[in-house]
Amino acid sequence: MALQHPAFAHIPATVKPKLSPKAKETIVKVYEWVENECIPAESIMERQLEGHRWAVQPKMQELRGRAREANLFNLFLPKTFKESPGLTNLEYACCAQIMGRCYWAAEKQKWLKPLLEGTAMSAYSMTEPDVAASDATNIACSLHREGNHYVINGRKVFGGSTMNKDLTFFILMVCSDPENPSAWKRHSMVIVPTNTPGIKHVRNLTIMGYDDAPQGHAEYLYTNVRVPVENLILGEGRAFEIAQGRLGPGRIHHCMRLIGQSERAYEMALVRAIDPQKKPRGKRIGDFDSNIERLAQMRLDIDTMRLIVLNAAETMDLLGNKAGRHTIAHSKIVVPSMAAKVIDECMQMHGGLGLTQETFMPHAWTYARYVRLADGPDAAHRHQVGRDELKQATQLQSKHRRYKEQASDLAAKL
Amino acid sequence: MALQHPAFAHIPATVKPKLSPKAKETIVKVYEWVENECIPAESIMERQLEGHRWAVQPKMQELRGRAREANLFNLFLPKTFKESPGLTNLEYACCAQIMGRCYWAAEKQKWLKPLLEGTAMSAYSMTEPDVAASDATNIACSLHREGNHYVINGRKVFGGSTMNKDLTFFILMVCSDPENPSAWKRHSMVIVPTNTPGIKHVRNLTIMGYDDAPQGHAEYLYTNVRVPVENLILGEGRAFEIAQGRLGPGRIHHCMRLIGQSERAYEMALVRAIDPQKKPRGKRIGDFDSNIERLAQMRLDIDTMRLIVLNAAETMDLLGNKAGRHTIAHSKIVVPSMAAKVIDECMQMHGGLGLTQETFMPHAWTYARYVRLADGPDAAHRHQVGRDELKQATQLQSKHRRYKEQASDLAAKL
Amino acid sequence: MALQHPAFAHIPATVKPKLSPKAKETIVKVYEWVENECIPAESIMERQLEGHRWAVQPKMQELRGRAREANLFNLFLPKTFKESPGLTNLEYACCAQIMGRCYWAAEKQKWLKPLLEGTAMSAYSMTEPDVAASDATNIACSLHREGNHYVINGRKVFGGSTMNKDLTFFILMVCSDPENPSAWKRHSMVIVPTNTPGIKHVRNLTIMGYDDAPQGHAEYLYTNVRVPVENLILGEGRAFEIAQGRLGPGRIHHCMRLIGQSERAYEMALVRAIDPQKKPRGKRIGDFDSNIERLAQMRLDIDTMRLIVLNAAETMDLLGNKAGRHTIAHSKIVVPSMAAKVIDECMQMHGGLGLTQETFMPHAWTYARYVRLADGPDAAHRHQVGRDELKQATQLQSKHRRYKEQASDLAAKL
Amino acid sequence: MALQHPAFAHIPATVKPKLSPKAKETIVKVYEWVENECIPAESIMERQLEGHRWAVQPKMQELRGRAREANLFNLFLPKTFKESPGLTNLEYACCAQIMGRCYWAAEKQKWLKPLLEGTAMSAYSMTEPDVAASDATNIACSLHREGNHYVINGRKVFGGSTMNKDLTFFILMVCSDPENPSAWKRHSMVIVPTNTPGIKHVRNLTIMGYDDAPQGHAEYLYTNVRVPVENLILGEGRAFEIAQGRLGPGRIHHCMRLIGQSERAYEMALVRAIDPQKKPRGKRIGDFDSNIERLAQMRLDIDTMRLIVLNAAETMDLLGNKAGRHTIAHSKIVVPSMAAKVIDECMQMHGGLGLTQETFMPHAWTYARYVRLADGPDAAHRHQVGRDELKQATQLQSKHRRYKEQASDLAAKL
Repeated sequence: MALQHPAFAHIPATVKPKLSPKAKETIVKVYEWVENECIPAESIMERQLEGHRWAVQPKMQELRGRAREANLFNLFLPKTFKESPGLTNLEYACCAQIMGRCYWAAEKQKWLKPLLEGTAMSAYSMTEPDVAASDATNIACSLHREGNHYVINGRKVFGGSTMNKDLTFFILMVCSDPENPSAWKRHSMVIVPTNTPGIKHVRNLTIMGYDDAPQGHAEYLYTNVRVPVENLILGEGRAFEIAQGRLGPGRIHHCMRLIGQSERAYEMALVRAIDPQKKPRGKRIGDFDSNIERLAQMRLDIDTMRLIVLNAAETMDLLGNKAGRHTIAHSKIVVPSMAAKVIDECMQMHGGLGLTQETFMPHAWTYARYVRLADGPDAAHRHQVGRDELKQATQLQSKHRRYKEQASDLAAKL
Repeated sequence: MALQHPAFAHIPATVKPKLSPKAKETIVKVYEWVENECIPAESIMERQLEGHRWAVQPKMQELRGRAREANLFNLFLPKTFKESPGLTNLEYACCAQIMGRCYWAAEKQKWLKPLLEGTAMSAYSMTEPDVAASDATNIACSLHREGNHYVINGRKVFGGSTMNKDLTFFILMVCSDPENPSAWKRHSMVIVPTNTPGIKHVRNLTIMGYDDAPQGHAEYLYTNVRVPVENLILGEGRAFEIAQGRLGPGRIHHCMRLIGQSERAYEMALVRAIDPQKKPRGKRIGDFDSNIERLAQMRLDIDTMRLIVLNAAETMDLLGNKAGRHTIAHSKIVVPSMAAKVIDECMQMHGGLGLTQETFMPHAWTYARYVRLADGPDAAHRHQVGRDELKQATQLQSKHRRYKEQASDLAAKL
Repeated sequence: MALQHPAFAHIPATVKPKLSPKAKETIVKVYEWVENECIPAESIMERQLEGHRWAVQPKMQELRGRAREANLFNLFLPKTFKESPGLTNLEYACCAQIMGRCYWAAEKQKWLKPLLEGTAMSAYSMTEPDVAASDATNIACSLHREGNHYVINGRKVFGGSTMNKDLTFFILMVCSDPENPSAWKRHSMVIVPTNTPGIKHVRNLTIMGYDDAPQGHAEYLYTNVRVPVENLILGEGRAFEIAQGRLGPGRIHHCMRLIGQSERAYEMALVRAIDPQKKPRGKRIGDFDSNIERLAQMRLDIDTMRLIVLNAAETMDLLGNKAGRHTIAHSKIVVPSMAAKVIDECMQMHGGLGLTQETFMPHAWTYARYVRLADGPDAAHRHQVGRDELKQATQLQSKHRRYKEQASDLAAKL
Repeated sequence: MALQHPAFAHIPATVKPKLSPKAKETIVKVYEWVENECIPAESIMERQLEGHRWAVQPKMQELRGRAREANLFNLFLPKTFKESPGLTNLEYACCAQIMGRCYWAAEKQKWLKPLLEGTAMSAYSMTEPDVAASDATNIACSLHREGNHYVINGRKVFGGSTMNKDLTFFILMVCSDPENPSAWKRHSMVIVPTNTPGIKHVRNLTIMGYDDAPQGHAEYLYTNVRVPVENLILGEGRAFEIAQGRLGPGRIHHCMRLIGQSERAYEMALVRAIDPQKKPRGKRIGDFDSNIERLAQMRLDIDTMRLIVLNAAETMDLLGNKAGRHTIAHSKIVVPSMAAKVIDECMQMHGGLGLTQETFMPHAWTYARYVRLADGPDAAHRHQVGRDELKQATQLQSKHRRYKEQASDLAAKL
């Protein structure tokens, strides 16, 4: 596979040798798909939502079918699944950064994950309006057993809107054993069909003004919602165990996509920079060396993000998700803010129209802003990193004390 | 007027002695109005828009009527108008910072300004999609005279949506004399009723996803639009002259309101900080000293913005708008970014729901973001300030050369 | 006094009307003094230190004498002293910002303060190497009474070097009553002549590499140092009471001077910008619009600092030092970092030589860096501001709850 | 070689598999050498300078001898030299980051490079006080041939001090052909023994107050300095060709060392964080979660720098110095500022003593600050990157235009 193909333009030279032939082929296919099928379809997709805000668009249905045929589905699936194309995290990261260029190019995969081949959609529902969900041990929505059923009571926010009829079930995080002495064994995950009696759709939520139709976000009230005991995933009290496995990939998946969005916004800024129609004070925007410096800084920021995320992906490949936790946190803390900064600067270089629906950038910024909070605010992740670091302090104390003792010895000999 | 009233809580001690009794009375009236009538009406106003997105809400109509009766209209009018309450810029700034707490509290005045007592609305329309409007000498929408009419051709963006039937005319910036040797005498301003034949409403625009109904933003195509010659304001080629007079107050008006928005977001962050329901890792948010430091920094940022804006307002009072131009630029460059930063941090302290319509903050952030571009991006204003500064460099060169000569003299005497 | 004089160039229009005739006259005298006597003498002063590093320079002695004759001494003294020129804090701030242009122009006053007319020097000595002195209640150097003497034991850092023979006494902060239930009554201040037996000069200290001769900084060991009981200032346990009175002015005094240093560095950057000898890629530095923007941002930063400090000075005039505490903290937290940033940027615009002794900037940067720690790190001051802010949170909680209740009432009436 | 050895603690998991057995062995040797021989010797080295400021210290002489015996010399030498240990850039980068922990641990190699085994020292001398040397084509110091000699006239700054008698020759960058139509062929490099008649040592220079003895920095005046023609390196007009080859490794060498300095400062901050003697407001510094967040951010910043520098080193290994130019610029622009920020924060966490000679940090900060200017200010490098980026804009313009065309096609088919 010729590495001169534009799909490889921003894959670091240090990463290219690590891509399998299969991965290279997939990267090119994903690139062609996103460039030729997804991005050009964005505006028609938007139009098809008009008047049918909560139905999946016909164009989206068509693209999904064709993606499945082209084997572009389930790229993210680990090798243990038979449908998996067998990409490493590093290879998948290279694909995801391309898919990220188009907001929904990766999205359809995520929603179809549970059923892989079907058309049903699920949503993960964790956050609650009444507790600090950034510390997930606070989740309070209750689940208790009555005979062969579990009964659920509580409130949830985000996690997709049931106005979208394709959303068929929630994967709900609940508190099943509030008195368990271990805070990490009190919670469970359970499958709840969206049409179960007792689920009240209170209202749709917007994020920075966006309703994100047709998936959407909403608030729900659960009152004595009953599901069969078989719907419990893995077993009572094992929610964190389940989460553990998918948190790493999930966290950096968002980061990878944000790099794609940043790269695309940056390309638009470069194009704007040479637009002969836009000449404040008689010069094209890219003739101002203040803008040349801004473009350079954005390029470096994007490259920095990419090195951080690819390092996390490869570390997971080498050591597993758990040992890679520091590199995942590195991505999760640094990327969303930096991507938002880059996209914001690109909008600014477009003047007033840069803030309108004329470009994809306002929505991309909103996504970056959202990821800064999704799965915990960056401050919470910094706390975790900082506490891990402090664990080594005692040992370093000995080492630094030793420096002084050896220096005294040397001075004594003088 | 007791300065202990909460309306004065954030007016600097150094400014209080400069407020007239009339101004103090007005500040209290504005405060009571905003706190008791406007902010509580926000959610109902939002609901009244549902299904009637482009009509001014009944509650808004009611509030406008009562504001007029309470003499809270036209606060901004200069003393030369008989309807003017006679406030200085500094005094008006104190009012505007309170009105800013509610997005539309000051808005109704702006829109009604042209007719003062009527219900008609106007919109200022300058920006164009095809040129770099940050340099207003680029404005290309053409106007030429044919007998007793002017004929207009061109494209415009922003400037209100005609889907709102209360919008009755545009104040249009046009290029009337493209060959004039002085770039500052090529443009004119003309009144164009919104129902004039030849104006095509191409589409509504959103800003960061917000349609800002019922005022809105839109794109227009002008094809041979004819208006009587009397509609020209002041005279041909005098657009920049007109702009000059209102730019200063207009620019800092936005800044004042942003301070009100920041102050309110900050109050919400303080309230969140002591919320006993929100306890990540067992502590209230305000028990984390990282958040204590963040709150402090936000308080200082708001106070910094306020000193800058009040200084600009008072400088205009003392020296006029033209001589105050540096202080106005100081506000225009510093405040929108700083306000956006403060509001962003307050959203972050609210977790995921901080980004939804649950709070006024996402819309406030969007407003701050917009003001960073409105009336020119901050980079353009920095360029202007920088060029002004460089004009003194030659004189400073002499002074610094003199230091060295005197130092040599001293050394010679040693 | 003509306000066109360059001494008033950077005093805000809003402040000028508040200056008394006496103050205006003083400001001009200070300006002429600094510009014509102090700055040109800098290099000779540096040369006179060579070989006599710890003796006050002859040129400094001469300038001191002449400053006293010109009544430029003791500008800072409150009106209660007969030697005071009677300036308000605001007026003094305007002088101090000019004196700040030359590192030591204000310095001689500070050192001579205790004796006003004499030539003896004192140094305030508080910090200790073994405790977190940012929280001054930790100060541990002990003082206890034995008959008619106090006996002192402990270690101190900073506070001037006794290698300078003109330093005649320390004002020492000590712990006199460690068991007092109130942490604010455990400490005292005592006068200790530098030649008292038992004081060991351990070593001189450098700050960022500077020895700051001839005043200097040093580390001391106090072993059974005895002083007569009359040397206690005000009374046992009253150290914080004494400190309280002078902290405000002391803190903003540093900030004022940093503004002078920043303004001078900025002037040098402007001069550099038009230097015809310095042409990277064929353009003068000031022809790059990236530098034009940088210069503008620096000007705005300096103006921002000035508004903050002058507001603090005037608030102290109006309300006293205690009520002005928030405005003082505002200065203390914002100014040192911002001044360091401005000076750093000016150095950068000078290329490699900007970091050498060729300019005053490296020393000025070091001073700004030092002030960020002197009298407590900025984090400690932010903590204090944040804790003060949180005291209002409960009241705001009620207000924001009321908004919601009123909104519900309105909705119910609909 | 056990990768559990602390020498590998901060080498990314993704880099470890790329280290040869020889490299791993060397890394451990370097680590032991720096930790046990260099860092403990710092204070004695400082003491040996007292009174002999410009002579290489006896301890340094001893360490050099032993390093040579231990084969720790010439680690940086490319494989083409017989003395080379044959490390890749990536492997050398891992060593250099460890050597960086001690300011002079790598220094002795640099100075001895020209003669490898001897004791003579050279210094590279390029910068001039009279031109903008950030654009090296401005270098003006002239060289012209007279018979069998070259005659040199001009002024130079930096490049070592001849007060250090071990400095035996300069490698001087001169302008040999000012009229050459190609700006890149006007300059040459020539070897000039320091004792050549006509070289005047004008004065020593300090950098941020540091004299950096015994190597030092100085200003020189060259008046008719004559050297034999054999002293010309490579040929007339080939200075940029020579520079090209060593610029890449030279630039990232500084960056690597800065990472070592940052890592060591960070360790000191961690140790400080658990110091039981330092308790502002009753808590250890590391018990404040604001500091926990700061420590986390520093760890992430250091890790970010490391990924960037190692990526540059490996890219040079894979593609050569020229093709790696973007990754080198990435390091050069990002690392010095970020390292200075980390070290500054670590100083701040140490309170006042953090700014004194008590710790290595003030000198380390100064080094980072210096590197931000050495070899061109970061703005110049950003300009270069930005100009390179703009070269792709036209191609991107076509691509983005194609998106729109394809979208129109799709819409037409609807």
